[in-house]
Amino acid sequence: MTLEPPLGRPLGEADTPALWVDLDALDHNIATMAGRCAEAGVDWRPHVKASKAPDLARRLVAGGAVGITCAKVSEAEAMADGGIVDILIANEVVGPLKIARLVTLAGRASVCVAVDDERNIGEISAAAVAAGVRVDMLVDINVGANRCGVTPERALDLARMVIDLPGVGFRGLMGYEGHVMGMQPEDKEAESARAADILRRARDILAAEGIEPRVISGGGTGNYWIAASLGALTELQAGGGVLMDLSYRDGMKVPGHRQALFLDAQVVSTAVPGRAIADAGWKATGMHTGLPAVVSHAGVRVLRLNAEHTILELTEGAPALEPGERITLVPHYSDSTVLLHRQMYAVRGGVIEEVWPIAAAGALQ
Amino acid sequence: MTLEPPLGRPLGEADTPALWVDLDALDHNIATMAGRCAEAGVDWRPHVKASKAPDLARRLVAGGAVGITCAKVSEAEAMADGGIVDILIANEVVGPLKIARLVTLAGRASVCVAVDDERNIGEISAAAVAAGVRVDMLVDINVGANRCGVTPERALDLARMVIDLPGVGFRGLMGYEGHVMGMQPEDKEAESARAADILRRARDILAAEGIEPRVISGGGTGNYWIAASLGALTELQAGGGVLMDLSYRDGMKVPGHRQALFLDAQVVSTAVPGRAIADAGWKATGMHTGLPAVVSHAGVRVLRLNAEHTILELTEGAPALEPGERITLVPHYSDSTVLLHRQMYAVRGGVIEEVWPIAAAGALQ
Repeated sequence: MTLEPPLGRPLGEADTPALWVDLDALDHNIATMAGRCAEAGVDWRPHVKASKAPDLARRLVAGGAVGITCAKVSEAEAMADGGIVDILIANEVVGPLKIARLVTLAGRASVCVAVDDERNIGEISAAAVAAGVRVDMLVDINVGANRCGVTPERALDLARMVIDLPGVGFRGLMGYEGHVMGMQPEDKEAESARAADILRRARDILAAEGIEPRVISGGGTGNYWIAASLGALTELQAGGGVLMDLSYRDGMKVPGHRQALFLDAQVVSTAVPGRAIADAGWKATGMHTGLPAVVSHAGVRVLRLNAEHTILELTEGAPALEPGERITLVPHYSDSTVLLHRQMYAVRGGVIEEVWPIAAAGALQ
Repeated sequence: MTLEPPLGRPLGEADTPALWVDLDALDHNIATMAGRCAEAGVDWRPHVKASKAPDLARRLVAGGAVGITCAKVSEAEAMADGGIVDILIANEVVGPLKIARLVTLAGRASVCVAVDDERNIGEISAAAVAAGVRVDMLVDINVGANRCGVTPERALDLARMVIDLPGVGFRGLMGYEGHVMGMQPEDKEAESARAADILRRARDILAAEGIEPRVISGGGTGNYWIAASLGALTELQAGGGVLMDLSYRDGMKVPGHRQALFLDAQVVSTAVPGRAIADAGWKATGMHTGLPAVVSHAGVRVLRLNAEHTILELTEGAPALEPGERITLVPHYSDSTVLLHRQMYAVRGGVIEEVWPIAAAGALQ
């Protein structure tokens, strides 16, 4: 039994757990991120791995993004299905099954991938030639995260290979500084600068051989306002901050954004004194980074999450709660929350304007 | 682009991350759990909140289960769609939207819910009468988890109300001892016995008034082999243990089960010395309880998970790994892993026999 989405109706008529976006706050955050990129003279290609909704991605493009960044081929497919035509997959795409999907995707969207391995570059080139498509590439540089990516010295060989092979195009360099996002402000500035230095060194090594990257891509929500002005990046991947969450606010100290993502839960039991139990557990909001916060009721605190239950503690000043009462939570981490849901409500002034399918939830391949 | 499921082909032809079940181990675990329940003279109604696949649920029924247990109405709907006709929703079902779905479901399956609140009982009764269906009820007893459920003394009023109202039937009592699952063995035995005492007290209070519960339901994978023989429960909810995982093995010390759930990942980068990076991160296997373990390669250890990356450390004795190499992981917690996927491969002897949709993933309402 599927219920009709209650468009034009109060959010309170949507069943819980109900994931929702405050459109005014979302628009503010999009304008903030696009504006900071424009001021710094860099392009904005926001990552959609946290939001996963093509409707939201189209809003990013309408708000000034040059395209989007995805984590996986299947995520990019869902975005192409939703009308997005310019996609960076900011990861290595490895193996014949994924490469087959990649070149199929490249037949209906402009696609760029990260590379750090010769054999992989050769396999993508061969598949692209066979499919009659072009796949652009960013040579992935390890800027300190020690995850993927080569040294600046090794980048030259890979860039030359991409330039020489058919079916693939050398777009530039990528260096994602994932390790700096959670650092304290002083360290974050210093380490962002170090990452930028590594990318500049790679750029200089290529320049000495007459190779000019059109794009140097990096930056996350945790450091984009710093990274934008360091002079190394030409394109910023930061995207999660359009939704915001407690980890961005408290852990990463992201300035000037408003909270746009919320989760409404409903009290299901008040039988145990001093507590109320609601229906959003860690299957509705990921908790490996921390617990969500109650914003709708003073004195009501999230004590812990079970799989399907919010264990709420009623501290002094808490209102009397009954089964059926709605509670609004702010997720601790948007990236570990949205993918658990199948839709989010786009809300303005308490009224549901749209229902956005989270089409890329479960897009793991 | 959807690829054909490679039925009858080696698992290695399925793209990664690939969630899969070893059918021999699954059948062993089902026989073990069903056998222990039969020996103890209790019915087995396994919870499917962790497995979420109707194909697997039907296998439980074929293996001796009297029906299944679900966490949510939407999960129960997915199971009814998959041919399951006898379902306990072991939670309170609150609010007009969910109650409307509940009584619709009760028109096509035998449905029982947990209750701990008079108004809620009245609302379900009224909706069931209006829909012309019957919803059975278990009065939920707080056996120490301090989540939902009333005291044994309060149970009498609720049972009487259920008995007196139309459209609903009093099936018995429920007491889920979630708090004991992770305890050390001595504490677990003592606290399981305490929970059983509370349920017996509730049963005795009802018996003094001539009310006989047909069912007393409880028990999880973390204590079912203890709970089965304590003489209080007539029906066990333990179900997650058919898949097994590291938390059941190491944390809950579940005896005699075999590991049945696995996650295959693929190396995507070996550019950073001493490491290999694979394509299953915490979006493919939940990590709030701990990290997965590598079982396919000696000397390869999961150092941490990023959203989409397994960060593997190559210790002494590790083989040389290249992009494309497949790695088999055991999830730390099945319950936080399966829901992230859309299908699991049912594998015997390395060959894919079936592909099971995880139909209840995202069933949060």
